[in-house]
Amino acid sequence: MSTLSSAPPLWLRDNCPCAECRDPRNGQKLFQITDLPAGLAVDAVLDTLTADGAPAREVVWTPDGHRSVYADTWLDAHLPGSPAGPGDGRGEDDKELWDAAGLAGRFPEAEWSAYTADPAVAAGALESVMRFGFVLLRGVPVRDRQVLEVARTFGFVRETNYGELFEVRVEADPNNLAFTGARITPHTDNPYRDPVPTLQLLHCLSNAAREGDSGLVDGFHAAALLRAEDPQAYEVLTRVPVPFTFADDRTALVAHRPLIGTDPAGRIREIRFNNRSIGTLRRPAEELDAFYAAYRRFGELLSRPELQLEFRLAPGDCLIFDNTRLLHARTAFAESGDRHLQGTYADIDGLASTLAVLRRKAVTA
Amino acid sequence: MSTLSSAPPLWLRDNCPCAECRDPRNGQKLFQITDLPAGLAVDAVLDTLTADGAPAREVVWTPDGHRSVYADTWLDAHLPGSPAGPGDGRGEDDKELWDAAGLAGRFPEAEWSAYTADPAVAAGALESVMRFGFVLLRGVPVRDRQVLEVARTFGFVRETNYGELFEVRVEADPNNLAFTGARITPHTDNPYRDPVPTLQLLHCLSNAAREGDSGLVDGFHAAALLRAEDPQAYEVLTRVPVPFTFADDRTALVAHRPLIGTDPAGRIREIRFNNRSIGTLRRPAEELDAFYAAYRRFGELLSRPELQLEFRLAPGDCLIFDNTRLLHARTAFAESGDRHLQGTYADIDGLASTLAVLRRKAVTA
Repeated sequence: MSTLSSAPPLWLRDNCPCAECRDPRNGQKLFQITDLPAGLAVDAVLDTLTADGAPAREVVWTPDGHRSVYADTWLDAHLPGSPAGPGDGRGEDDKELWDAAGLAGRFPEAEWSAYTADPAVAAGALESVMRFGFVLLRGVPVRDRQVLEVARTFGFVRETNYGELFEVRVEADPNNLAFTGARITPHTDNPYRDPVPTLQLLHCLSNAAREGDSGLVDGFHAAALLRAEDPQAYEVLTRVPVPFTFADDRTALVAHRPLIGTDPAGRIREIRFNNRSIGTLRRPAEELDAFYAAYRRFGELLSRPELQLEFRLAPGDCLIFDNTRLLHARTAFAESGDRHLQGTYADIDGLASTLAVLRRKAVTA
Repeated sequence: MSTLSSAPPLWLRDNCPCAECRDPRNGQKLFQITDLPAGLAVDAVLDTLTADGAPAREVVWTPDGHRSVYADTWLDAHLPGSPAGPGDGRGEDDKELWDAAGLAGRFPEAEWSAYTADPAVAAGALESVMRFGFVLLRGVPVRDRQVLEVARTFGFVRETNYGELFEVRVEADPNNLAFTGARITPHTDNPYRDPVPTLQLLHCLSNAAREGDSGLVDGFHAAALLRAEDPQAYEVLTRVPVPFTFADDRTALVAHRPLIGTDPAGRIREIRFNNRSIGTLRRPAEELDAFYAAYRRFGELLSRPELQLEFRLAPGDCLIFDNTRLLHARTAFAESGDRHLQGTYADIDGLASTLAVLRRKAVTA
């Protein structure tokens, strides 16, 4: 634990909670970092109390004479050397990585009636999306466009070229293989979008087809396995931008992003994997060799049986999953069979916000 | 230029254009990278013609005997060693960086009537957003919710906690300083969202207030200047995740992202800069010192007068700008003055797609 006087002055001052520095109405900072005087330093530290009567320190600043009051509890939690705070919930360190066996007996699911009536059930379901990458809501009304209502329980629909809502069923003139009876191997959706839709919802309206079963794979877990088993292949996949493309009469999308997206500390944050939409890489031959060897190796790893979580969607099931982490798949089915899902996209930042507000209410209730 | 036989086999085969490998209906790839046989190699290369009668090579593959026909024009453009193809339009290399003087005499703008009637004018306006980061549409009908119609000319509205549409005017109980008369220094919006909304639209309905002028700064240009002038500060800002936060009664958003986001090759791709919503960094003291010195230096650089493009929005003006690149600002105005903008968010991948389709039509027209 550092002492207060050894805290970096700009950092400490930037966290001044006084009403002159932060708008009391909304907590937003009222000054620019460039407004702070050159040579800013702590002139004196006095024992005091906060407005709520909690023990605190008052810092008198030089050269401008500003005074800042920091609660001792805040200082204990935030001074340099105190434990690292939580992440933003999006990187591999904030997740519980899984294989199929690891979820045995604790498949993340919730009943729609309880989800909508009980904030604790809702929080548990949203927590599953953050932690495992998905939740299956059961007993959702089998109603046209209901999937949009599900999305609006926690966030905002992300409209795309597939519409506000898309129909997953056999189409006469499909612009995407999803709209045929073909087997679809594990993939993420819309890798040719940047920003990619971070959540997908699939609501089953009917599923009388033989086969057409669903599968999920934890892409973070697969990427972590690749890193352990073949660090060079992993490194190539974090480094090489892949041109993902999609085109039809009304659309021409392209995004150049790596298969494994990492944060600045090199931790896994986003998976894009979709064989259908990888365009032509243009790189020197030796880089293409290295990329394709790594891509194939990752593909083999993603298809390991122990990573496939398989289940069957029944009418009324609505799957909500993290499209930046989980890959989804389905087995082939007869095009004559009756299988109809409605899907939509949304974003996980809104879901995380709704979860945080539910937790805040649980604490204050 | 490599010869065809020296091309990496997996790369070449992954680009096979035959109907067995790609769905002729939608161009999507029908095989997995893991479906290709081990030991894949070119067995023979024969001169041939494409179905359209263009000169081509036919590759016979071993061990599976598959045959692939590649047009010579495709090989010339794509074989390893051929010129690098275009980027995805999003990184610094795809942009024209600017300062205020650099845009003198070529302020990107278009008349709404021409924009909606003439695809060439529309393409020019959208091209300005990709190239300079913004365009100003003039003469847009001064109508409630019209800004949503503007967004729908090129893409999809991104709803957020501020609504589908937000009102920029003086509010009685503002949850954000934007909704006061305060001066707002150059910033990007919603840095506490991930994915951040990549486009913002601001439509002026009235502006009778004294002051309340608008400003834009090219954040890519500023970051490139920082890299040239102080490479260590630049490197710190690409590396340190900053906790951006926003909270009100219904919302609790957090994203840990660097101020300067780079692609895997280290090129500038995304700027986040918003003093109002930077939370408390938790790092060792020496890292906080380095971050705050770099943050302040970047802040000083962003406020250099020569970088500020200043103009005044008149009723009927609608500004469309890249929220991952440009910072926007406004001068303070009297809260009694009549100034009313309506804003919305959208995404630039959809705008780039609309531009590409307009260009495609122009070529085939």
